[in-house]
Amino acid sequence: MNLTLNSPLDMHVHLRQDDMLRFVAPFTAQQFVGAVCMPNTLPPVDRADRLDAYTASIRKAVGDLSFDPYVPLFFRDDLTREELTAMRDRLFGVKLYPAGVTTNSDAGVAELGKIEPVLDILQDLDLPLLVHGETNGYSHDREREFVAVYDHIATTFPRLRLIMEHISTVEAAEFLDKHDNVFATITLHHLCHTLDDVLGGPFNPFYFCKPILKSPRDRDALQSLVKAGHPKIMFGSDSAPHTEVAKRTEGAAGCFTAPVLLPCLAEFFEDHDLLDQLQAFVSDNAQRIYRLDPPRRDVVLEPRTWTVPPRYGSIVPMNAGAHLRWKVQNAPEE
Amino acid sequence: MNLTLNSPLDMHVHLRQDDMLRFVAPFTAQQFVGAVCMPNTLPPVDRADRLDAYTASIRKAVGDLSFDPYVPLFFRDDLTREELTAMRDRLFGVKLYPAGVTTNSDAGVAELGKIEPVLDILQDLDLPLLVHGETNGYSHDREREFVAVYDHIATTFPRLRLIMEHISTVEAAEFLDKHDNVFATITLHHLCHTLDDVLGGPFNPFYFCKPILKSPRDRDALQSLVKAGHPKIMFGSDSAPHTEVAKRTEGAAGCFTAPVLLPCLAEFFEDHDLLDQLQAFVSDNAQRIYRLDPPRRDVVLEPRTWTVPPRYGSIVPMNAGAHLRWKVQNAPEE
Repeated sequence: MNLTLNSPLDMHVHLRQDDMLRFVAPFTAQQFVGAVCMPNTLPPVDRADRLDAYTASIRKAVGDLSFDPYVPLFFRDDLTREELTAMRDRLFGVKLYPAGVTTNSDAGVAELGKIEPVLDILQDLDLPLLVHGETNGYSHDREREFVAVYDHIATTFPRLRLIMEHISTVEAAEFLDKHDNVFATITLHHLCHTLDDVLGGPFNPFYFCKPILKSPRDRDALQSLVKAGHPKIMFGSDSAPHTEVAKRTEGAAGCFTAPVLLPCLAEFFEDHDLLDQLQAFVSDNAQRIYRLDPPRRDVVLEPRTWTVPPRYGSIVPMNAGAHLRWKVQNAPEE
Repeated sequence: MNLTLNSPLDMHVHLRQDDMLRFVAPFTAQQFVGAVCMPNTLPPVDRADRLDAYTASIRKAVGDLSFDPYVPLFFRDDLTREELTAMRDRLFGVKLYPAGVTTNSDAGVAELGKIEPVLDILQDLDLPLLVHGETNGYSHDREREFVAVYDHIATTFPRLRLIMEHISTVEAAEFLDKHDNVFATITLHHLCHTLDDVLGGPFNPFYFCKPILKSPRDRDALQSLVKAGHPKIMFGSDSAPHTEVAKRTEGAAGCFTAPVLLPCLAEFFEDHDLLDQLQAFVSDNAQRIYRLDPPRRDVVLEPRTWTVPPRYGSIVPMNAGAHLRWKVQNAPEE
């Protein structure tokens, strides 16, 4: 029996620019009717004109498919109330990469002082703040340490919707219920894998991503949220295309999961007897949290085994070579 | 002023076979007068004839340098008292890779039941047991979990000298003092680096090794042992040559440190104001623990800056491109 998803959404994806954008955007647009497209381009999408241009380039790349690109603005600490107000109607949110936050969470919070005026404006304008929440501490602990920063922001700005992006730890999972205004996205790879898939055997660069995959205990905490049908979690793939050469010779971080997302999610939810919760995870929760009205389009998965190809163009997808049980209807044959 | 080391020893190194052996053995023999050469060759060095042949091939590879290869026998659980007794005089010890030990340490110990008859013989013959102490659990915890196995062995065989190879965790460091018959080797990379050097930024395959590098807290525990001049620790590099291709495309684990060992150790000990303890760490402790009588040869380091070359043949060394302050006298110019 087919599995029909109503207007599935990918709430965190990297589509890049130019040729790469044109190559990868269709994978996302085929499986999702909308996606939160990350603004860490070159240059970053940190002004209204760049927002309009990037949004247009994504629309062009997906062609005829009904698809909404949601592009959050790349955070600048000199964003003004006037600038944000002027683009309010076409602005989805603001994405913060707190690169300067140190291992010491007190210091981290102190450093956040200079960004707080902007957070105050975002709260007033009811614009969500999306955060890559890692300190610059030990990689296995960066997200755990950052929870203190999340706590500070959520407490200081109680009406600001705060989205913890791609959570990967017990600590972030447990923190989710502490504040009403805190939400989270979860990737396929953090939900299903651990650091052992990266380096438990020979090193596998195609599972290497940031935040790094964590322990079985961390993964299980994410799975528990999903199994509980937690209303504050949303699917966000963090799919990130890098060429095989970049993965192998430059150590690029990121998993290209776009072509396998819904098939792998369906398999995970089916294996855990949760298929009735997939719709909420891949769309309904996000629509409610973000108050979205995405294009109405069903995406249908057929129970038909296929093999993930070794490469899409120059990119090795996650789970290359795997036999998957669900196939997106009308997906191209390999 | 030069730094002179009397008969330095590398108590854990992989010299491989054939062309690779001939290429890498001189790096070790130039800096050390003896080395514990791992028996995980193809086939493994698990019988007397293979022990003799491998020892001879190492001697041949190092040429005229006075150098003793100490080759422990690869553990077989069908080793007999007769077989071990017959080779006792030329046997250095036995190396155990407990591949079947599970994450559950109780089960792990239970599985050790079938190896205990051999451990009993080793204890009787006063042959040291060298152990790669990792369970098959989560990679960040494998050694921590294995400490229960070390504890079981050390308790059951109180006269067996048990060497924890390449320790990498707080737990192993703290365990060192629990039993008189437990000792440890420490590598350069576990002493100086953390998992962040592997994947804190872009992935760096040349710091990828097993056991994986751990946290700053783990590294600091090893440094504390060294700073305390702990008498039960020995230097063992675990230098392992893999071609750049194997590192990048096969995900091979192991750091090729042989060309930089004494210069880097000298730098670390100097930076920590410990130069007077280097001799014990790189030779005296091992001679006492193993009751060795190695060749008498001084290795001299000159305070002369040099740059680690990007490659030695097809192999990228750890710290390629680094400027090191100490240079081994008579070492070839790059």
